[in-house]
Amino acid sequence: MTTQPTRPTIVSGMRPTGRLHLGHLHGALANWVRLQDEAECFFFSADWHALTTNYHAPEIIKQSEREMFVDFIAAGIDPQKATLFVQSHVKEHAELFLLLGMITPVGWLERSPTYKEIRENITDRDLALYGFLGYPVLMTADIILYKATRVPVGVDQVPHLELSREIVRKFNFHYGEVFPEPQPMLTAAPKILGTDGRKMSKSYGNTIDLGESVESTQKKIMGMVTDPARKRRQDPGNPDVCGIFYLHKVTSEADTITWVDQNCRTAGIGCVDCKKKLLEKLLPEQERMRVRRDALLARPKDLDDIVQLGTEKARAAAARTMDQVRKAMKLE
Amino acid sequence: MTTQPTRPTIVSGMRPTGRLHLGHLHGALANWVRLQDEAECFFFSADWHALTTNYHAPEIIKQSEREMFVDFIAAGIDPQKATLFVQSHVKEHAELFLLLGMITPVGWLERSPTYKEIRENITDRDLALYGFLGYPVLMTADIILYKATRVPVGVDQVPHLELSREIVRKFNFHYGEVFPEPQPMLTAAPKILGTDGRKMSKSYGNTIDLGESVESTQKKIMGMVTDPARKRRQDPGNPDVCGIFYLHKVTSEADTITWVDQNCRTAGIGCVDCKKKLLEKLLPEQERMRVRRDALLARPKDLDDIVQLGTEKARAAAARTMDQVRKAMKLE
Repeated sequence: MTTQPTRPTIVSGMRPTGRLHLGHLHGALANWVRLQDEAECFFFSADWHALTTNYHAPEIIKQSEREMFVDFIAAGIDPQKATLFVQSHVKEHAELFLLLGMITPVGWLERSPTYKEIRENITDRDLALYGFLGYPVLMTADIILYKATRVPVGVDQVPHLELSREIVRKFNFHYGEVFPEPQPMLTAAPKILGTDGRKMSKSYGNTIDLGESVESTQKKIMGMVTDPARKRRQDPGNPDVCGIFYLHKVTSEADTITWVDQNCRTAGIGCVDCKKKLLEKLLPEQERMRVRRDALLARPKDLDDIVQLGTEKARAAAARTMDQVRKAMKLE
Repeated sequence: MTTQPTRPTIVSGMRPTGRLHLGHLHGALANWVRLQDEAECFFFSADWHALTTNYHAPEIIKQSEREMFVDFIAAGIDPQKATLFVQSHVKEHAELFLLLGMITPVGWLERSPTYKEIRENITDRDLALYGFLGYPVLMTADIILYKATRVPVGVDQVPHLELSREIVRKFNFHYGEVFPEPQPMLTAAPKILGTDGRKMSKSYGNTIDLGESVESTQKKIMGMVTDPARKRRQDPGNPDVCGIFYLHKVTSEADTITWVDQNCRTAGIGCVDCKKKLLEKLLPEQERMRVRRDALLARPKDLDDIVQLGTEKARAAAARTMDQVRKAMKLE
């Protein structure tokens, strides 16, 4: 039996494909910040994963990566607590991906909901690619290389993690108990809408970036779509369909949230009042992150050192695991 | 345009899945021995490839690998001329495999004749595995990592090499001209039959191993199946269906081959005469290889050094290529 360490190990990655926005902050980063105090955390730039959908235009990856790490730290990730690293700089991810591929049935991968879904939704380029099909195999390697016991995931990622556990069970069955089965740590992913009322996403051009300037944040919030049914000030609104209210819920204090909820429904406040209330908390937060971002960007050497040190730490952990893997597979 | 070096680079690998026999000698090794004087040669133990069909019993791989290298050298490969190395010790193979997978359509792989054929013929275990499907991608990485211009292949491997060239063209199209397109170097693969008259193969238990002892070789040859239609000494034989004649063709001098051909057809000689004639050349060759094998096996440190040095040389070449690949893919 694999012994579980008292302090859990948590691994999570993000694809560097553009600037991070409030959707990333509340969907993942805020959770990572909480986790870094409770667990041994490895947070990485999933640059190889980014290639699965960006193979035709890979320059965006390294352009985004640096700013992504800056955003991680600006959002509150502490490099003294969590290990930050670059996936492609730890070659063991590729080696374990290759080895796990040898025992993973193609059928398991073809049935993955994401493979089906993205193939159907992205039609401007061919994504029926070998690397794309194998995305859950690489994801499994990423996780188990550090013997992660918990993986913070949204509901949509649960099937992938189930697949990871199946791969782990098959590995352990053939070669002996090397890996713990990574368990999902379901994270409530609050809904974050963009300025146009659709899901906040770079591809819609409706984002408010992490640490965006006070002026720009203010302008975007004041122009943001609210409950489309509330046409006039005196109409009661429905906060349940309003992007501003969603932002209140992740930004404002409990009493403010209650105040907004009640007064919106009764037309006690207008959207302008509501937005100004949000900005009272949001602008200082954005400004705090902007200052942290600027300070980090002004010390490129420090940032390099952080990522370099993190990568070395990840590499050492990965090398230990791969020694065990090669022994278990009789490849030494 | 890629400039072609004057001296071609040749890469070829062999799966370590058991002792080598006369089929390997005449099907591949004899050719490698010729090539090492004409080209920059990299010959490797394809241990990761061996996993694609042996994932359930990997211990055979490392058990066979050492003897395989001994056989290479006993057959005449000169480590001063050719680079001998272990695939899994050069991690760049896994990294390039992963990167090439990102641009290789699944459809190209599903149409590979070998994938179809082995899936149909090996039914005792599930081979519809992700790594097995990707075998041509790993093979492509093996070859182009050293910028091989020529690959010695049998006719059955030509479709795989065509697939490798397609992958290379797609890579060069997206990221710039990094790799030359590897061309097949068609090698006449003489037919070598086993003692029972079927194709010589470990799985049939009908092999004569490379450097097998004089006594054992003699016994196997004297008991070997010849033209099954030649029932009595006075019946004329048909050398075109006789495993002994096939061995003559790769072992004996031209005048002996003619003598056998004519006298078998006219019943001028019997099978015993023919076999004794074969042994005149075959036994000294087997003995020469046995002596070389024993000498090498008695100096394990020397063999370790040969493979270690070869692996370091391969690693340096692979690292140079990967630097170019990462630059071309904007991953630096």
